[in-house]
Amino acid sequence: MQSVIHVDLGERSYDIEIAPDAIDQLGERMRSLDLGKKVLLVSNPVVFRHYGDRAMASLRDRGFEVAHCIIMAGEQYKTLNSIQKIYGQALENQLERSSTMVALGGGVIGDMTGFAAATWLRGMNFIQVPTTLLAMVDASIGGKTGVNHPKGKNLIGAFYQPRLVLIDPKVLKTLPAREFRAGMAEVIKYGVIWDEALFEKMERCDRLDQLRFLPEELLHDILVRSCQSKVDVVVQDEREAGLRAILNYGHTIGHAVESLTRYKVTNHGEAVAIGMVAASRCAVQLKCWDEACDARQFELIEKTGLPTKLPSNLDIEKILETLKTDKKVKDGKVRFILPKRIGEATISDRVTSDLLREILPTLQ
Amino acid sequence: MQSVIHVDLGERSYDIEIAPDAIDQLGERMRSLDLGKKVLLVSNPVVFRHYGDRAMASLRDRGFEVAHCIIMAGEQYKTLNSIQKIYGQALENQLERSSTMVALGGGVIGDMTGFAAATWLRGMNFIQVPTTLLAMVDASIGGKTGVNHPKGKNLIGAFYQPRLVLIDPKVLKTLPAREFRAGMAEVIKYGVIWDEALFEKMERCDRLDQLRFLPEELLHDILVRSCQSKVDVVVQDEREAGLRAILNYGHTIGHAVESLTRYKVTNHGEAVAIGMVAASRCAVQLKCWDEACDARQFELIEKTGLPTKLPSNLDIEKILETLKTDKKVKDGKVRFILPKRIGEATISDRVTSDLLREILPTLQ
Repeated sequence: MQSVIHVDLGERSYDIEIAPDAIDQLGERMRSLDLGKKVLLVSNPVVFRHYGDRAMASLRDRGFEVAHCIIMAGEQYKTLNSIQKIYGQALENQLERSSTMVALGGGVIGDMTGFAAATWLRGMNFIQVPTTLLAMVDASIGGKTGVNHPKGKNLIGAFYQPRLVLIDPKVLKTLPAREFRAGMAEVIKYGVIWDEALFEKMERCDRLDQLRFLPEELLHDILVRSCQSKVDVVVQDEREAGLRAILNYGHTIGHAVESLTRYKVTNHGEAVAIGMVAASRCAVQLKCWDEACDARQFELIEKTGLPTKLPSNLDIEKILETLKTDKKVKDGKVRFILPKRIGEATISDRVTSDLLREILPTLQ
Repeated sequence: MQSVIHVDLGERSYDIEIAPDAIDQLGERMRSLDLGKKVLLVSNPVVFRHYGDRAMASLRDRGFEVAHCIIMAGEQYKTLNSIQKIYGQALENQLERSSTMVALGGGVIGDMTGFAAATWLRGMNFIQVPTTLLAMVDASIGGKTGVNHPKGKNLIGAFYQPRLVLIDPKVLKTLPAREFRAGMAEVIKYGVIWDEALFEKMERCDRLDQLRFLPEELLHDILVRSCQSKVDVVVQDEREAGLRAILNYGHTIGHAVESLTRYKVTNHGEAVAIGMVAASRCAVQLKCWDEACDARQFELIEKTGLPTKLPSNLDIEKILETLKTDKKVKDGKVRFILPKRIGEATISDRVTSDLLREILPTLQ
């Protein structure tokens, strides 16, 4: 099974390639893009231990000079400090504008490497080799890069497109189950907002809480359909002027939850799952979609082993306050993404603080 | 006298407006761009004292909510630390994606404000109100933004276009003479690489070392022709793939000089003047242009009161070493911009370390 999804963004176009053992093809694929010979591979300790040698060997076999930079994993390390560490390696290895930074890791490594590539020498080549399900179906696609500010997630960043996204489904075997489930939250999101068939395929599978319960074909399907969903939206709205906002379904409350628990209690996918439950209930209340759909989404989230309740001790007023610093605020109004039917969502400014004060306690 | 230069960069197009007292039109001009109502004005202490009130009043009169952020002037403050200060103000004033950062100041303020605007919330509106000659004719146009790294100038940055550049020639009256001359270095550069008529106009003026010796019309001409020169080049090559490199005439040696003297001995324009003298002599040696042109350029630089010698105690081997970390390095070769005739320049990789070892001592 091998699939290529072309992302058509004019001069910033690139391919997403999904194939088993793709990691061993990294050097060959980069060769065909006519990049300079210097490469800085950025990874985290665990991923690098598993796959660093294969990726570096593949690059060296094709004549690249490879240096590497290891950054700690986790949202709490997604800071300008880590970016400075990458800059230091770029300087030490005398990277040039024609050189390439390769992100080998999850969303945090991808976001940081992308931001470093966007801002070192005012922009160099950048390639994503995502190793978590979350990064494969979401973070590695669409050109959002950046780091957290002490007071909010992803406040610092740039839109910067990679030259290639290389997805090797086999690396998911070493992914902890909890991280696999986190990625599934985004997959469920695509089902709800964009791809009814994807949603139904997942409904037909008995268990979704661990990789081993998924038939190989379903996994490939999930990767292809999720990436395609994101690409469909991104090519229509690269810089998040309108449509792209629907990808934030579940993320408005989700970001607030992550931020208030300092990225230590829930991971991103879990926070999104909670956010989707909240947004879905708001949508029912606003008669935007029906209770049957709400129940189907709830069941899928539960079957995936994702949380549907807010972390304990989280003050609802603090959530409301945090929403005000969200990037999705426009002229003071928080814009929510609400589902309309399985496979379609809309942007709404009808979710008031009062409605949230009614809905959020049902998630406690 | 009032001139508008349109910069045609597709969806990133914008106007450069040159008019006396333009600073009082800031609010009105921004109103016509349909921007959000929040504005963060970034300036340095001296410029803000002179023009801050007028700029802020103009904005408030047109209904904008204005906050301001004062950053110390000077290359040594052009760091990620200062960017973090701007981020802090952006957060405190709850800027949104539709909000605008306005740079009121010289090149350092413009570069930093632009980089902050490019990277806060992954990009917000950005407007340049340059107050130095250098910023008016060079730094504010073309979308280069960024900060210095402890080990090199402008290593961190992004290409990010402003929505408007507003130039008020009258603010040059408060500019120190040394800074005026620094700006003239870039004007001379445009004459050499692009605009023979501009070069000849300056040759016909007896003294160029102080603003008061320039007739008002010549000043307007200098601003318009310099901006137009830069725009001509930038619209053909926004991201510095080829042609745009000619704007770096004098900058290769210039950057090394600035960096090695830690931005304390020569300012940017002075360093560029020295760099132009060096590049011109290399070009003579390579039979790329003739001695008569070299002499005409030298005379213009002297008439402007700009330095033509390297700062004392500067080790030539250290200059050669510093060139290796220059962004203009490609596959290990330093690319130099060399003049061909008054009004035309070319990119060359024929300037070897040996040639520089021969030429640079003549500037000592």
